[in-house]
Amino acid sequence: MSYQSSVAQDSLSSAQLEMAGNPNALALRRPFDPVAHDLEASFRLTRFADLKGRSCKVPQDVLSKLVESLQQDYSQQDQDQFMHVAIPRIGIGLDCSVTPLRHGGLCLVQTTDFFYPLVDDPYMMGKIACANVLSDLYAMGVTECDNMLMLLGVSTKMTEKERDVVIPLIMRGFKDSALEAGTSVTGGQTVINPWCTIGGVATTICQPNEYIVPDNAVMGDVLVLTKPLGTQVAVNAHQWLDQPERWNRIKLVVSEEDVRRAYHRAMDSMSRLNRIAARLMHKYNAHGSTDVTGFGLLGHAQNLASHQKNEVSFVIHNLPVIAKMAAVAKACGNMFQLLQGHAPETSGGLLICLPREQAAAYCKDIEKQEGYQAWIIGIVEKGNRTARIIDKPRVIEVPAKD
Amino acid sequence: MSYQSSVAQDSLSSAQLEMAGNPNALALRRPFDPVAHDLEASFRLTRFADLKGRSCKVPQDVLSKLVESLQQDYSQQDQDQFMHVAIPRIGIGLDCSVTPLRHGGLCLVQTTDFFYPLVDDPYMMGKIACANVLSDLYAMGVTECDNMLMLLGVSTKMTEKERDVVIPLIMRGFKDSALEAGTSVTGGQTVINPWCTIGGVATTICQPNEYIVPDNAVMGDVLVLTKPLGTQVAVNAHQWLDQPERWNRIKLVVSEEDVRRAYHRAMDSMSRLNRIAARLMHKYNAHGSTDVTGFGLLGHAQNLASHQKNEVSFVIHNLPVIAKMAAVAKACGNMFQLLQGHAPETSGGLLICLPREQAAAYCKDIEKQEGYQAWIIGIVEKGNRTARIIDKPRVIEVPAKD
Repeated sequence: MSYQSSVAQDSLSSAQLEMAGNPNALALRRPFDPVAHDLEASFRLTRFADLKGRSCKVPQDVLSKLVESLQQDYSQQDQDQFMHVAIPRIGIGLDCSVTPLRHGGLCLVQTTDFFYPLVDDPYMMGKIACANVLSDLYAMGVTECDNMLMLLGVSTKMTEKERDVVIPLIMRGFKDSALEAGTSVTGGQTVINPWCTIGGVATTICQPNEYIVPDNAVMGDVLVLTKPLGTQVAVNAHQWLDQPERWNRIKLVVSEEDVRRAYHRAMDSMSRLNRIAARLMHKYNAHGSTDVTGFGLLGHAQNLASHQKNEVSFVIHNLPVIAKMAAVAKACGNMFQLLQGHAPETSGGLLICLPREQAAAYCKDIEKQEGYQAWIIGIVEKGNRTARIIDKPRVIEVPAKD
Repeated sequence: MSYQSSVAQDSLSSAQLEMAGNPNALALRRPFDPVAHDLEASFRLTRFADLKGRSCKVPQDVLSKLVESLQQDYSQQDQDQFMHVAIPRIGIGLDCSVTPLRHGGLCLVQTTDFFYPLVDDPYMMGKIACANVLSDLYAMGVTECDNMLMLLGVSTKMTEKERDVVIPLIMRGFKDSALEAGTSVTGGQTVINPWCTIGGVATTICQPNEYIVPDNAVMGDVLVLTKPLGTQVAVNAHQWLDQPERWNRIKLVVSEEDVRRAYHRAMDSMSRLNRIAARLMHKYNAHGSTDVTGFGLLGHAQNLASHQKNEVSFVIHNLPVIAKMAAVAKACGNMFQLLQGHAPETSGGLLICLPREQAAAYCKDIEKQEGYQAWIIGIVEKGNRTARIIDKPRVIEVPAKD
């Protein structure tokens, strides 16, 4: 009942949005053209951060070390402090934190994420940032988000004009994605910062049966991935279109048209919500899941494996990659480490442990509902809670959607 | 009942912390000495951001313009969409967002904040950041926080050594402050960024009677402030101790010893929780409150005034300021705008509208419980929902605590 009311609200707000005669409404659906917004033709949102192809994340091993002291303090209070509610605390290291509440049986599921512009269309950047934040909830099987906050850093290097054009577009993209997810943005924080920053906080209050603790993989399960890899490669290759010395390194393996298609495929993929993927996890009895983001497929697979109750390991055989991006990655030597599983992704797919007999039906169902493929990419075998990619994994070329 | 269990957990964890033989435990209570941590004597945390005395906030008028489009979309769904729960949505523009939940009668109160280092002691910086985030909950009269997330930006300019010393200390300070508030930090996000960034998210799920909608000021109320102004002036003056050309501008009005005292008073004040101040708001029937942070006393007073149901205005007569900092501000010309009410504060006090006959008792009670003064600084009169400081406000010199 309350769920339906939430959907109704959602549709109504979208309708209001369409009908409000917002002068941006049409422009938002077209690729971003700086000139149409009275900015220099050379304006590139992605230049307001200088990651130089690095991930925005602190490396996984460094981060583990940094949070070690926090984790020690918490481990002792994991279960025993909360005996009056039979919910384990889930915290640092997983996609969301789950906290039992003072109010009978409910728990708080929460996540936060922020990063830097990786596409040049501010509206799409807002959508991607929102989808990326929500993805952590979806990875836990949570399909309803009760509230979102937005985190924004306005670059000190933006002119006032640039700021006044770009920031409202980012905000609107973020908000529209939240509406699509049936939730809304009620607050946030905006600061100035050398790099443009965008992110948010997603919060749900739910019954314990609404989330799936991702620690239940068993031997014989298979691994499903719901979005292709290669988003980082695609956005970088696209930036190199106007950097001749970079472009020369890859032009033998890829055409300009290939890169544009891959870039649009990547934007489409990154702004797509993992919400239906999460809903189907319940229907097909998923044993656990994580979303693939800054630490790459293998990094997140290893993290998920390390949290399993059973003595299992993950072996990955197949790598679905946005068309041509595997070739681009190879042409760049070791830079992306895409086929090694280390290329960072943004708002990537869910990596899900499913009972073998359910996996095909899961993939078929998601394709039927969304028109997007999902792939069985590996298996769960007996092991010591690690993950690996086989020596010569099969690369599945994933074409742009027409 | 649940409150007691939360306090018990809190004390236990603190005790565990003390007894764990943590090698930092003692060092944490002394002023931060870079050399004792194997860093260069010249290491200054505050150099990992370059605000040049500006507030980290986007100016209030610019921000209003930027969020305007979001607000329009929300205003229509303010009340009517939520008829089944008699709770108004409170969102952008106030200290916290309040969202009615799917679960009978409960609501979600949430806030986020992040900024840059303003003191050189990493542990204290962590405590201040946490107190600053929580302060938004306290401003709404909410005294229990159910969960916190931590937001960290590790400066790209830090050496690995600096990072490995400083970041865990910041994390520990943040976490200790959360424990002091009876809550804990269960997750967050850590990225690399040119400037060191620290902040968090505070979340509570509560009954509507646990928060105070800050819109109920009436003619005849008085305004109480629970912490002195001048934190920004004090931390800047302290940085100028090793910048001779800056120091020369203020050395006629203040001694080195004065500045050190003011700096410690400011750190003490910024790391102090507004929790008891919030609890007493219920006891003394407060009509509304906000916390004084980046927009300065007058900015926040104006914002609070603009949200009132009744036709009232705020008039401020008294400015309690950390000792000597009013003189420093004057010696710096227009730089801080302290006496004009525009100097940004960090983790400032609550500005509370109280019934006239309760205000003195409120101030007496907070002093009895915490040993800190609070001040009646102004009155609520008939008006058009604005706030002003009188022409020659009385400056109250607030000495360092011994």
